[in-house]
Amino acid sequence: MSSAPRVAVLPKSGRFESLEAAVVDGGGVVASIEEADALVWADPACPEDLPGILARGPSVRWVGLPFAGIEPYLGYLTDEHVWTAAKGVYAVPVAEHVVACALAGLRGLVHYGRQREWSGPQGRNLVGANVTILGAGGITDELVRLLEPFECRITVVRRQADAYPGAARTLSLTDRLDGLADADVVVLALALTPETNGVIGAAELAAMPKHTWLINVARGGHVQVDALLAALAADDIGGAVLDVTDPEPLPDGHPLWTQPNVMITPHVGNTPEMGIPLLAAHIAGNVSRFRIGDDLSGVVDTKAGY
Amino acid sequence: MSSAPRVAVLPKSGRFESLEAAVVDGGGVVASIEEADALVWADPACPEDLPGILARGPSVRWVGLPFAGIEPYLGYLTDEHVWTAAKGVYAVPVAEHVVACALAGLRGLVHYGRQREWSGPQGRNLVGANVTILGAGGITDELVRLLEPFECRITVVRRQADAYPGAARTLSLTDRLDGLADADVVVLALALTPETNGVIGAAELAAMPKHTWLINVARGGHVQVDALLAALAADDIGGAVLDVTDPEPLPDGHPLWTQPNVMITPHVGNTPEMGIPLLAAHIAGNVSRFRIGDDLSGVVDTKAGY
Repeated sequence: MSSAPRVAVLPKSGRFESLEAAVVDGGGVVASIEEADALVWADPACPEDLPGILARGPSVRWVGLPFAGIEPYLGYLTDEHVWTAAKGVYAVPVAEHVVACALAGLRGLVHYGRQREWSGPQGRNLVGANVTILGAGGITDELVRLLEPFECRITVVRRQADAYPGAARTLSLTDRLDGLADADVVVLALALTPETNGVIGAAELAAMPKHTWLINVARGGHVQVDALLAALAADDIGGAVLDVTDPEPLPDGHPLWTQPNVMITPHVGNTPEMGIPLLAAHIAGNVSRFRIGDDLSGVVDTKAGY
Repeated sequence: MSSAPRVAVLPKSGRFESLEAAVVDGGGVVASIEEADALVWADPACPEDLPGILARGPSVRWVGLPFAGIEPYLGYLTDEHVWTAAKGVYAVPVAEHVVACALAGLRGLVHYGRQREWSGPQGRNLVGANVTILGAGGITDELVRLLEPFECRITVVRRQADAYPGAARTLSLTDRLDGLADADVVVLALALTPETNGVIGAAELAAMPKHTWLINVARGGHVQVDALLAALAADDIGGAVLDVTDPEPLPDGHPLWTQPNVMITPHVGNTPEMGIPLLAAHIAGNVSRFRIGDDLSGVVDTKAGY
């Protein structure tokens, strides 16, 4: 189709204004769900409303979801629609957050930030460090790019060990312990699936050197919290910076809040202020592709769940 | 001279073993001060002992100092010797610390690291930010290199406004306010001289946008502390990460310790663990240059004081 596609932007409780503008930027027209060719989902907070809205749109062929990780929507992924997620859209701010957190851990800032007196030197360099990244998506792409001048030795762990460009070593998920044994930093940037749930447990933490920092910008469920607390108590790893937790938000009084070598950041790898312009650009691009019949960006594999 | 130069490594209270090894690596022989052609100063702690030791070495032509900033030695710089400082030697770890501190400020880690409960999103990107660097030495060289994939717009402020490679804009020190007015991050990486003492005062802080983070890895004396405390109290800047302070060490109970938007790191831009191998390589290189009559690296301008 090269005429303007009709795109519903719902629900109205969400960020619909910037996304309506994106639809227009992409060459579409904003329409009601009843007459829409496509639906752009505008509110992060209410996945359960999606089936009811979608049922009112018999002509909808594409549904655009505004997140990279779409676990709350998995039960609603119909085969008769094309689903897109915002895969890689927020990769730059999230990858930057990884660099911030890795440096905060390695260079002692997690420690120094809590001191009220001059203390002794500590810290290691990220320059030249061994960085092992679980996941091979957009965040990893951007992280590898940001780390280039740091001359790290990068290991990528992914489902299949197809060589990752820019990595010194690529390992399959089943061989992950080999990628942890010499890591100065371990970054979790993979999708949460039944296969990767709890992927960092006692064996993985035991495999890491005692100075290793664990950075999680993926999902809280990737890390077995009891195993992490035990490893921290035993000084088996250097520490952890967790941008995602399980449960999330992390409840007041949770023991992770008071670990000396843990910093919690409240899921701010990508903040709304950073992300909305990026999402709008992604939606505009996909509306434009939908209009001319190109392959959409970020199509969800409904079987794999991401 | 191409025969092995005789190099004294003193005083013995310092890191003389690794530096004696560096002398040998550079093709020299370790000698007593009485018969030495050169003196490698091995102890950071006792500048006042230098004139007495040097007086015992009538053949010494070159004195190698182990620091980048050599203020404590300025009174002892004789015209009859060539003096070298470790200029740029520690630039990589210090530039890395700047990136760590800038990200910790911009991305909210100074704040989040002190929370004990889930809080709201804050933070800005370093990617694409305006970064103004005061100083145009080795740290700036390395910082510009590390920031390359972050695609910052870099302004360098230096004594004379000779265009700095890789900077979008180069300003002279007298025009510094122009370089502060649009800065998201201001980095102090310049030598402390009478001209630069207190270079960041009330006017400079007022010129910065309200979200700007100030990062000081140079010398505490560059920042007028009362003006900084006033600017922080009035929310005139975003915050400060100070790796150097005045006085240093920063005393217990100093108001900077308890500012919410300030992080103090205890002069760890370069730690001994990071720096000793770098210093040893620098000394070995200079011994080798001294041996074959090449220009030494890091020669001090005794008039300028760095």
